[in-house]
Amino acid sequence: MLPFKTLLHLDKTLPQPIFAQLSEQLGQLIRVGTLTAGQRLPGTRQLADLLNLHRQTVVAAYDDLLAQGWLESRAGSGTYVATHLPDMKPQSISAGETNHTHDNRQTGFSFIRSPELVRAVMASPSGLRLDDGLPDARLAPLDELGRAYRSYFRWGSVQAHVGYGDTKGHPLLREELSRHLNETRGLRTTPDNVLITRGSIMGLFLTCQVVLRPGRGTAGEVVVTGETTWAGATMNLRRAGATLRTVPVDAHGLDVDALGQLCEQQQQDNQPVRMVYVTPHHHYPTTVTLRADRRVRLLQLAEQYGFAVLEDDYDYDYHYLGRPILPLASADRRGMVVYVGSLTKSVAPAFRVGYVVAPTELIDELARFRRIIDRQGDAVLEYAIGQLFHTGEMKRHFRKSLRAYHARRDHLCALLASELPDAVQFQKPDGGMAVWATFDRSIDVAELSVRAERAGLAISPGLTHNPPGSLLNSTRLGFASSTEEELERAVEVLRSLL
Amino acid sequence: MLPFKTLLHLDKTLPQPIFAQLSEQLGQLIRVGTLTAGQRLPGTRQLADLLNLHRQTVVAAYDDLLAQGWLESRAGSGTYVATHLPDMKPQSISAGETNHTHDNRQTGFSFIRSPELVRAVMASPSGLRLDDGLPDARLAPLDELGRAYRSYFRWGSVQAHVGYGDTKGHPLLREELSRHLNETRGLRTTPDNVLITRGSIMGLFLTCQVVLRPGRGTAGEVVVTGETTWAGATMNLRRAGATLRTVPVDAHGLDVDALGQLCEQQQQDNQPVRMVYVTPHHHYPTTVTLRADRRVRLLQLAEQYGFAVLEDDYDYDYHYLGRPILPLASADRRGMVVYVGSLTKSVAPAFRVGYVVAPTELIDELARFRRIIDRQGDAVLEYAIGQLFHTGEMKRHFRKSLRAYHARRDHLCALLASELPDAVQFQKPDGGMAVWATFDRSIDVAELSVRAERAGLAISPGLTHNPPGSLLNSTRLGFASSTEEELERAVEVLRSLL
Repeated sequence: MLPFKTLLHLDKTLPQPIFAQLSEQLGQLIRVGTLTAGQRLPGTRQLADLLNLHRQTVVAAYDDLLAQGWLESRAGSGTYVATHLPDMKPQSISAGETNHTHDNRQTGFSFIRSPELVRAVMASPSGLRLDDGLPDARLAPLDELGRAYRSYFRWGSVQAHVGYGDTKGHPLLREELSRHLNETRGLRTTPDNVLITRGSIMGLFLTCQVVLRPGRGTAGEVVVTGETTWAGATMNLRRAGATLRTVPVDAHGLDVDALGQLCEQQQQDNQPVRMVYVTPHHHYPTTVTLRADRRVRLLQLAEQYGFAVLEDDYDYDYHYLGRPILPLASADRRGMVVYVGSLTKSVAPAFRVGYVVAPTELIDELARFRRIIDRQGDAVLEYAIGQLFHTGEMKRHFRKSLRAYHARRDHLCALLASELPDAVQFQKPDGGMAVWATFDRSIDVAELSVRAERAGLAISPGLTHNPPGSLLNSTRLGFASSTEEELERAVEVLRSLL
Repeated sequence: MLPFKTLLHLDKTLPQPIFAQLSEQLGQLIRVGTLTAGQRLPGTRQLADLLNLHRQTVVAAYDDLLAQGWLESRAGSGTYVATHLPDMKPQSISAGETNHTHDNRQTGFSFIRSPELVRAVMASPSGLRLDDGLPDARLAPLDELGRAYRSYFRWGSVQAHVGYGDTKGHPLLREELSRHLNETRGLRTTPDNVLITRGSIMGLFLTCQVVLRPGRGTAGEVVVTGETTWAGATMNLRRAGATLRTVPVDAHGLDVDALGQLCEQQQQDNQPVRMVYVTPHHHYPTTVTLRADRRVRLLQLAEQYGFAVLEDDYDYDYHYLGRPILPLASADRRGMVVYVGSLTKSVAPAFRVGYVVAPTELIDELARFRRIIDRQGDAVLEYAIGQLFHTGEMKRHFRKSLRAYHARRDHLCALLASELPDAVQFQKPDGGMAVWATFDRSIDVAELSVRAERAGLAISPGLTHNPPGSLLNSTRLGFASSTEEELERAVEVLRSLL
C-alpha cells in the first residue's frame, strides 16, 4: 500500500472540512499519476485507522470521488481508481502546480482593460464632507421603508411575489412613478412608458447601448455633451463607441447656437449628431439651469436633425426657486427625448431605484437588453418604494428634505462669502445639492482635497469637472448631506488650509 | 384681452393639478405664438375670477412660468410674456402638434433592435407548473430575511450604511460567500476574488464584455458552447460580438475530444478559441454531469490553447447523488476559470444575488465595468443574505430544500414512468431542479405547451432547448417548485392532453 500517511496532509485548522481535503488530495494523487487507473484503494476502515480519522470522514471522501468519477466501487471487492481516466500530460499538470498562485491574482488568459473606466467614485465619507452633492441619508424614511419591507412578506401569494417578475419593474412602482411624474413634471406617461432601473446610470447605459451603433473600425456615432459634464455619462458614451463632441456651457446652460452650428457641420461631413446628453435642470457639474428659449431651441434642433435628447434629471426634486422647471420631456411632441431619473439622490444612495421614461417601443427594447444584464430589479425594494409613494410618505420626505437642503444651501453660501471671500467664487445655485465653487487661480483643488482629507474633510478633487486644458480649480461643494453645524466645521477646516 | 375662457381647457378630473394644466397651456399659447413676446398678461385676481379658480392657483401657474423663463414680472406693472423668446418655427411646432402621439409609442429617432434579444422568460406561474427548474419560493426563509432587513436599519451608522457602498458588494456578504464557497466547493478564494452581482446573468454579461473583443467589421472572437445550451448565455455572447461554435453534448456532458479538434482547427485558421461556456455540474438543458476525465481534459485544453472557461454553476446546491461534484474552478491551477453562480435558484428568484469568482485582476476590471451599468448592488438585500449565511440559516435552508427537491425528483420520475410510459423518455437526473424529458416523435412540445397552458398547466415550450434542425420534442420538466401533490395533478393534466 502507498505511504498515505506521508502523501496526505490534512489540516484541521483550515476552513475546508477534512473529508474535502482528503477527497481533493486523493484526486490530486490520481491526477499526477501516483494512484493509477484501476488501482485498488485501502478500505475506509483501514485508511481511517491509518490517518486517525472517523471512518465516516473517509467514507465521505470516497463518496465524493465516486460521485466525481475518479473512483469506482466493485460489488464486494472494494473501491478502485476509475479505469476510464484521461490520457494525462503530467508535465503540464506539474507545471501548473509550480505556477499555482495561491493568492488568486492572475488570469491565465488575456482580457481587455478599458482605460475609460475609472473607479473614482466618492464613497459616502463618515466624517465632515462637502461632497459631490449627496443626499443626507439621515433624513431618509427608514422606519417607513422597514415597515414596507415587512409588509411585502405578508402580502399576496408568496410564489407570485418572490418568483420571477417583470423585467420592467414592479407594477406598483411603475404605476405610482408614472402618476408622480405626470403630476409633478408635466409628463404624459402611462406605466408602459416607464422602465425601472438600478439608479440612473443603468438607464444611461441601456440607452447608449441601444441607440448608438458602435464604430466598426471607423469612428463611432457622434454624441454631444457640455464642455463640462458627468464622467459617468462620458464613460458610458465612450464604452458604447461614441465619438464625443462638446459645446460650451455658460450661465444659462448649454450653448444651443453652438450646438446648431455643430449639427449643421456634422450633417455636411456626413457624420450627423445622433444624440445630445444634457442635464438641463441643474447642469452637472456647474448647477446652472437651461434657459427656456434654449430648451425650445434644443427640441427644435432635435426634430430638425433627428438626434435623440438624453435628458438626465438626476436631482429634479430639489429646486429652491418657486417650483422646479418642467423637464424637456414635458414639452417633447415628437418622441425625441429619453428621460432618465433616480431616487438615489432623493432618498439615499443605498436605495438603487432609477427609471427611464421613453416611448413604449424604446422601453420595450431597453427591457429586452436589460434582461441580459440583469433579469429583473429587486422586487422587495421596488415594492417598498412604491408603497411609500402610495401612502404619500415619499412626498412628505421630499418636502422635508427640500426645506432642510434649502436652509443648508443658504447657510453654506453665507459661510463661503463670509469666511472665504477671496479664495472662492460662486453663484448661489437655484437648486440641486451642491455649490459650484471656483477657487483662486493659485489653488489646485485636487491638491487641496488631499490635504483636506488629512484634516478630516472630504471634498471632491474635481478632476473630471474642469474642461480639458483648464486649471483644476473648480469643484462641487455639496451642502445637502451636512447639517448647518457640520457645514460650519467643514468651512472652518477649509479656511485653515488656505 | 385674449378670450382665455375659450383658449384654456382645465379639467379637474385629470391627475395633473389645475395649476400645472394652466401653466402648461399658457406656455403652449406662447410657443404657438398666440401670446407674443412682451405681451402683458391679466392680473392673477382677474384671471382667477374669469376662470373661476382660486387666485393662488393662478399665482402658482404664473410662478411656474416665471421660473421656466416664459414670463417676466416688472416691478409694479404686472406680468409679461418674456421678451427674450426664441425665433420659433410655427410650422414645425404645429406639425409637431398634429403628430403628437398621446399614447407615447414611437420615438422620433432611430435605434437598434437586436433580434438576438428575446423576451421569452418564464414568469413564475400561479397555477400548476412543470417549469424550467425554478425553486419553490414557499420554502424560502422569508421570516428570517424579514428580520435581517429590519436589523439592517438599526445597525451601525446610517450614513455609512445607506450611503454609497462598494461596487463589488457588501463586505459581509463577500466574506461569508467566500468562506461558504471554500468550505462547500473546494475553492480557494478570499473576499477579493468575489464580485457580488444581480443574479448570475450579470456575471455572464460582464465577463463576456470584458474578455471578448467585439468583431470590427470582420467576425468576432470564437466562443464554444454545447450544441444545446442556455439562451441567456448565447444572447450575451452574441451581444458581445462573439462568433459561436458548438460541440456535441452526450450523456457525460460536453464532448471534449470534439472540442480539442475544434481548438486545433481554429488555431490553424488563425481564429483561436477565446472562451468556452460550460454548465458542467448539471448541463443546461439536459442536466447531465461532466465526467471527471473530461473535466481534467477541458482544463488541459484551456491551458494548452489559452482560452477562458466560463463555468456557470447555476444550481450547484441541489445534487442528490452523494455529495455535489466539486466545480472545475476547484481544480483550476492557472487562473483559466471564471466561476459564476447565483442564489436566485437557491432561495427565490426575487432575491437577485449572484456572484463571479475569478482572479483579483479580473474581478477589479469587472467591477470597473459594473460601475457604469449599476453603481452598486442592493446593500440591504446583500446584508440580509450575508446575515443568513452568518447565522447558518442559509445552510439550514439548503438542507431543507435539498430534502424536499430530492423527494420531488423521485416522485416526478415515478409519475412519468407510470403515467406516461410511452409518451416520455428521460434519465433520472443526479441533481438540479428539472427532468430532461424527450417526448414521442409525434409530439411537438411547443404546441403541447400551448394546450397545457389552456388546461392550467405551465410547461416550457423548449424552443431554445433543441439543437437547430431537430424536432422540438424535448423540454425541461421542473419538479422543485411543486409539492408532490401538485406534481400528481400536473402529470394528470399532461396525460389528459396526450
